[in-house]
Amino acid sequence: MKKTVITISREYGSGGRIIGKKLAEALGINFYDGELLSLVAKESGYTEEFVRQNDQKKTQSLLYHLYMGSQILPASDMIFIAQSRVIKDLHSKESCVIVGRCADYVLRGKEDVINIFIHAPLESRAARVKDEYGEQADNYATHVKKKDKSRVAYYNYFADDSWGKAQTYDLSVNSDIGVDNAVKIIVDYVKAKQGE
Amino acid sequence: MKKTVITISREYGSGGRIIGKKLAEALGINFYDGELLSLVAKESGYTEEFVRQNDQKKTQSLLYHLYMGSQILPASDMIFIAQSRVIKDLHSKESCVIVGRCADYVLRGKEDVINIFIHAPLESRAARVKDEYGEQADNYATHVKKKDKSRVAYYNYFADDSWGKAQTYDLSVNSDIGVDNAVKIIVDYVKAKQGE
Repeated sequence: MKKTVITISREYGSGGRIIGKKLAEALGINFYDGELLSLVAKESGYTEEFVRQNDQKKTQSLLYHLYMGSQILPASDMIFIAQSRVIKDLHSKESCVIVGRCADYVLRGKEDVINIFIHAPLESRAARVKDEYGEQADNYATHVKKKDKSRVAYYNYFADDSWGKAQTYDLSVNSDIGVDNAVKIIVDYVKAKQGE
Repeated sequence: MKKTVITISREYGSGGRIIGKKLAEALGINFYDGELLSLVAKESGYTEEFVRQNDQKKTQSLLYHLYMGSQILPASDMIFIAQSRVIKDLHSKESCVIVGRCADYVLRGKEDVINIFIHAPLESRAARVKDEYGEQADNYATHVKKKDKSRVAYYNYFADDSWGKAQTYDLSVNSDIGVDNAVKIIVDYVKAKQGE
């Protein structure tokens, strides 16, 4: 396989992470998600715990920062910059699958990048979160929608407003066909793009 | 193959129509686009020529209709209603591929419908329109963007604002991988969805 970085963006509860993991296995390349976090932590000098606590949190208000007399960038911005550096670094070195972290945006304009979006109807996602993710919620649909909202806010804060638009991705798949089927279709796409 | 209607929505110049045609051939089912128009014309009592002239034209302003003293629906609305009836009729009878005409919206909520979106970068679409569609334009990128705009306006007028959103479709494909590759991936998706 030619060197390729595959980014996966996904709706909450769509199974995008597991699809990414299985895709990496099928292609025999590395998968980054939690591992990426560790790399970021190491490079930025933050402890892994610190990164975990601050990651994907919305940036605190400007007022708060003024109040705190802070002149430095908010922690979430610093983490994003460090993560972006790691993503670019990975892109220059190896084929891999990267889930989340606006990787599609960070690597925009690069030829050897394939951007994938995984989505599913709300009911399917609520069911997956309940049955497979082991999360507790009074109303799973509301819980999923809240998580979606924070995911979109994260993307819009650091990237642009193109999250979820079909044109942003090379391939968008409704994961209701099943995780393994989705992986197979993405593998077919990657092979087709590489002229195999 | 189980009974399935596949709708294709597409950006202008993405090759969505030819992908739909080849998809129908690959699956051994009927393809509707120009043919659908004829069906509509026949059912609605309009001549084919009349439908062609009015089809996809934006509805004229309310003021114009008041001025004309017209109490009936604008022609474009009547055509849309007739087309929708034909689409629902086809859905109740046979497996087929339907390109455009907001078919995804007309058949929303139906179980045995697979919605596909075909898109491509602007440069690829401008090149396709120039080289394959045989159209004349001073600036092909501008020409393509104008056609896109009218396609989105048509969709938003008759349907809702979900055109081009990944979540609207089961599968969205960047056709830069080539027409035949795109067809193959859609066939894989259809088979996976049908549990084959």
